Amino acid sequence: MKRRTLFTTGLGGVLAAATAGHAAADVDPMRGTGDLGLVIERAAGRVAVIETTTATRLFAVDGLGDLSHASAVFSRDGRFGYVFGRDGGLSKVDLLRGRLVARIIQGGNSIGGAISQDGRVIAVSNYEPGGVKLFDAADLSLLSEIAAIGADGARSKVVGLVDAPDGKLVFALYDAGEIWTADIDDPRAPVVQRYRDVGRLPYDGMITPDGRHYVAGLFGEDGVALLDLWKPEAGVRRILDGYGRGEEPLPVYKMPHLEGWASVGDLGFVPAVGRHEVLVVSMTEWREVSRIPVHGQPIFAVARPDGRQVWVNFAHPRNDVVQVIDVPTRSVIATLQPGRAVLHLEFTPRGERVWLSVRDADRVDVYDTRRLARVGSLSVDKPSGIFFTARAGRVGY
Amino acid sequence: MKRRTLFTTGLGGVLAAATAGHAAADVDPMRGTGDLGLVIERAAGRVAVIETTTATRLFAVDGLGDLSHASAVFSRDGRFGYVFGRDGGLSKVDLLRGRLVARIIQGGNSIGGAISQDGRVIAVSNYEPGGVKLFDAADLSLLSEIAAIGADGARSKVVGLVDAPDGKLVFALYDAGEIWTADIDDPRAPVVQRYRDVGRLPYDGMITPDGRHYVAGLFGEDGVALLDLWKPEAGVRRILDGYGRGEEPLPVYKMPHLEGWASVGDLGFVPAVGRHEVLVVSMTEWREVSRIPVHGQPIFAVARPDGRQVWVNFAHPRNDVVQVIDVPTRSVIATLQPGRAVLHLEFTPRGERVWLSVRDADRVDVYDTRRLARVGSLSVDKPSGIFFTARAGRVGY
Repeated sequence: MKRRTLFTTGLGGVLAAATAGHAAADVDPMRGTGDLGLVIERAAGRVAVIETTTATRLFAVDGLGDLSHASAVFSRDGRFGYVFGRDGGLSKVDLLRGRLVARIIQGGNSIGGAISQDGRVIAVSNYEPGGVKLFDAADLSLLSEIAAIGADGARSKVVGLVDAPDGKLVFALYDAGEIWTADIDDPRAPVVQRYRDVGRLPYDGMITPDGRHYVAGLFGEDGVALLDLWKPEAGVRRILDGYGRGEEPLPVYKMPHLEGWASVGDLGFVPAVGRHEVLVVSMTEWREVSRIPVHGQPIFAVARPDGRQVWVNFAHPRNDVVQVIDVPTRSVIATLQPGRAVLHLEFTPRGERVWLSVRDADRVDVYDTRRLARVGSLSVDKPSGIFFTARAGRVGY
Repeated sequence: MKRRTLFTTGLGGVLAAATAGHAAADVDPMRGTGDLGLVIERAAGRVAVIETTTATRLFAVDGLGDLSHASAVFSRDGRFGYVFGRDGGLSKVDLLRGRLVARIIQGGNSIGGAISQDGRVIAVSNYEPGGVKLFDAADLSLLSEIAAIGADGARSKVVGLVDAPDGKLVFALYDAGEIWTADIDDPRAPVVQRYRDVGRLPYDGMITPDGRHYVAGLFGEDGVALLDLWKPEAGVRRILDGYGRGEEPLPVYKMPHLEGWASVGDLGFVPAVGRHEVLVVSMTEWREVSRIPVHGQPIFAVARPDGRQVWVNFAHPRNDVVQVIDVPTRSVIATLQPGRAVLHLEFTPRGERVWLSVRDADRVDVYDTRRLARVGSLSVDKPSGIFFTARAGRVGY
């Protein structure tokens, strides 16, 4: 089945996009990869290969398994995407040919992955059986495994896996309440540094865009664990003690993703837990400095690349709305209503556009971030995560 | 003539690089562009197309004219490089095919250019006859010209041209002592905002990586002019009044480039004028906070992408050395001696490597930034500027 839909772009042209079909017939495989990306089609186990210059779909690539909570990273040349599926699947997609070139089931249940600073290693964190596995980025052959056995002697679920400068990985042990760094300069023999007793049940982690600070959210208690990678000898300390305070514990899957913390200079814009607020946090003093009332429970707060705006989406049932925070005034300047179930958003590398997944409308919408207006749309089957190749050049994805 | 040279890379392999030759025979044109770049071969009027994954030269592209002080920007897909030559030449290079695809002489004498946020427009600033010209990025056809006539009624040389968020350009009028912003949303009808009396003879300008602050160095007096693009109504103010104070005026060509200011969080690492020091400047309070003694008169101070290190090169005759500043301790931790005339340096996007032009040795050296050791080298004829495609996704180049 192949439908075609007309839409207009901000460039003033009228473009045709292949929607639910497979390879577009006229894609020139000799093209740059800096404007490419992947959109997860969760229900279909498929990804759409898109390009952002004229906002078109180039290919659909099938057979990627269970893509709920799927995420993607990219090879350093931008040609290949690595997709991490919930079913433990790791898939390598050729964005230029629109083909699945390798796929393995590497674990029973996984929640994310990372690519090493040098691009040679794909790391996957697993719920079942726990631990982190390292794969060769070329052929997905297994290089080594970090078992993630905590101080209690038991194997732990691993969450919040990110790459860090100087050839490192950082991740959190959910069951053990630990944060580990791994030097993977020799990926067959990772060198692990363990930080014990960081707090109960870290459920997610993120690293600041400069690769310096790793923070892990705690499901088992209020507050957040912080590791300063410039001062590892100082160990992990607790910050934002009020984070989550006074709230009923939420199911883990309703906790805001920490990858949804926006950094703007030395400020973080952080979804509150269980509240209709975005917290503004000083990332030098690591304390809350103000709160911004918003439309619902925020899920992602994502900064435009220049930091002038933060775009926020929300949890069900208020997930038909996106709000735009103006950073200088710390106030909401626009409330947009793209449609039901806005699940994810991704800015073009220099921030002139933002792409939004509107799952229940089977659409990805493209907004002009200056005019805060929709300038294009693509038909995509139940879209969720959107990932652009510019991530290949950045730390912490 | 085609020589081949063996060298080892940090990946442990031994690679062969075509050196002064032209297209390498075995380059697959279907490849990603995220790891490509250009090296200016100044004397030969040529650029080398390189890739950073295995540190090889892919092509040599001739016929680019006078490339002294040349710089380059990239199309948003990473396929094309636009090279600005001193002779007013604007050349478009296809990095995948290793070919010059368009070239015009757009002015009599130019010093730099920029690509618009949306990638549609190439802007060039001219000394002769002054002003800024806007070209279509597809075919280099002229779209419009900004004449840059100052309050004195005379046409001015234009310097320090950069792109900025929300579809803008920013530049300085050398003769008129003004800073202008231009909204080029309609590139055939730019909308200009003028800031008069910013100080005598601005000789260069730069924008902070977040695209918020534009600073222009002043040749005619001490201090620096600052425009906060988030508060344009506040106008231009003078900062760092001591910058250049007490020094004999230097020839313009010996003034440190402002593009050589490194931003690390809210600190700037700034080459002092006429002194063997790097200044550390608070970029929130815009005042000097400390000085770091270095080997010579610094030219470029470039931050590793994660901000943990700043690498510094120096003016003749002390230009055989590069020093590495450790940002946490603000001290020099390494003094490297690559060879005579280290003219430029460029980090890979995630910072694991830095490439250095060693002009008098006809070499580009590749350093591991963690071990501060050379891990590879390419033979390049009189290399100067090095530019990687990751610039396409960043503001202010």
